[in-house]
Amino acid sequence: MLIQSTQNDTVKRMRSLAAKKGRQETGLHFIEGERLVREAIASGADIAALFIEEGREAEDIASSAARVYTVTRRVLESMTDTGTPQWICAAVRTQDTTSPESYPDGLIVALDRVQDPGNLGTILRTADAMGAVGLLLGSGCADPFGPKVLRSTMGSLYHIPLWQGELDQELSKLKQAGFSLVCGHLEGNETLPPVGDKCVLIIGNEGNGVSDRVADMCCKYRLPMYGRAESLNASVAAGILMYELARTMRGQ
Amino acid sequence: MLIQSTQNDTVKRMRSLAAKKGRQETGLHFIEGERLVREAIASGADIAALFIEEGREAEDIASSAARVYTVTRRVLESMTDTGTPQWICAAVRTQDTTSPESYPDGLIVALDRVQDPGNLGTILRTADAMGAVGLLLGSGCADPFGPKVLRSTMGSLYHIPLWQGELDQELSKLKQAGFSLVCGHLEGNETLPPVGDKCVLIIGNEGNGVSDRVADMCCKYRLPMYGRAESLNASVAAGILMYELARTMRGQ
Repeated sequence: MLIQSTQNDTVKRMRSLAAKKGRQETGLHFIEGERLVREAIASGADIAALFIEEGREAEDIASSAARVYTVTRRVLESMTDTGTPQWICAAVRTQDTTSPESYPDGLIVALDRVQDPGNLGTILRTADAMGAVGLLLGSGCADPFGPKVLRSTMGSLYHIPLWQGELDQELSKLKQAGFSLVCGHLEGNETLPPVGDKCVLIIGNEGNGVSDRVADMCCKYRLPMYGRAESLNASVAAGILMYELARTMRGQ
Repeated sequence: MLIQSTQNDTVKRMRSLAAKKGRQETGLHFIEGERLVREAIASGADIAALFIEEGREAEDIASSAARVYTVTRRVLESMTDTGTPQWICAAVRTQDTTSPESYPDGLIVALDRVQDPGNLGTILRTADAMGAVGLLLGSGCADPFGPKVLRSTMGSLYHIPLWQGELDQELSKLKQAGFSLVCGHLEGNETLPPVGDKCVLIIGNEGNGVSDRVADMCCKYRLPMYGRAESLNASVAAGILMYELARTMRGQ
């Protein structure tokens, strides 16, 4: 079926996924580009609808989707956040992000009010690269299924579990289950505390860091800095912390 | 003197600094916000002109500038890149970035075609935090005096020396002067080579990494990755590499 009108109902529904409200009402999120679509399929995500530019073919991908639409270039452009889309897009059923009864062992990265979508996506991508077993998002974080986050994750969203919950409550649960809690903090110690094979790293808000209530539950660690910059970019600080913990937990 | 017209010649000249051509012709660059202006003054930068919103006062800052203008809010907005300026801006004489006859000992960060202004600014900020003695920009990098770079450096531009030059040539000079050259590379070894107190870290282009010619002069080092992400964001990778080298060079 070829869709030629930007006012087509399905197309309008896809545009609504750019906003959090649209995503919540439908339980879907929208991804752009062959790479991201293939990552979603490879990870077993449920592809509710696939949109392919007319003149392009993608049989291997199309067979994984519940519905496949052919669309004109103009329709494709109207659906996407960037305005310069690649030739393929998809609506994906959003995975369940309820926090688990019991968390898996390993490195868990928890975010406390990380609000910039680019930072959230980059942190998720780094957590994936560093072998984290999951990402826990407290309330007040950017929506992980928004278009900007999805672009900066580079597919990592489909590699590791994502949990959403009340941070205080989940951190208490994790502490009781034997996890060490570590946060980056300007008033912390410059030596990394001993961590076992169960550790939660908490990353705070870009401007204000980790909230006091959360910080009080954690070992505070301050990254050594040698120069005159007062602080690091949030994604960079998170990256260095994850790297250090990942190596320490592997005894390297 | 109060400037009320967005068509005032001085105001037009300031707007021209948003483009590289304007910056090259005048030898000036343009910064926004009290924090950045104060950093520039504290570092001894030459403030050619200062623009203060009418109704605001800044005597301590004004005394450091060759010329001081009072401007209406509308004029201020017309001058700035963000459209939502703070109350103070300045034109700063761009420092000399000629590469030196002999480089100082320590960690030097060199950039090979880093094109994203946000990445360049973030890398400069991280280099400052990690105590690098200078930043060397090869040709093909983003202009370090562009508005987006200036915003993401958070003032670090005025903390450490910035050099521009032909990378091959400068790296040869550095190698001859006893510097170890290290670059991040997907085909590298996962163990950091021994480095003394003179080391250059080369950061490559966002999509393509370090060019072959440059890589051939370096020890190639691959950051250990444990998960499924194929790569890291450029600023994050650069941050982790700088952190590792800074610590290694300090024997930590």
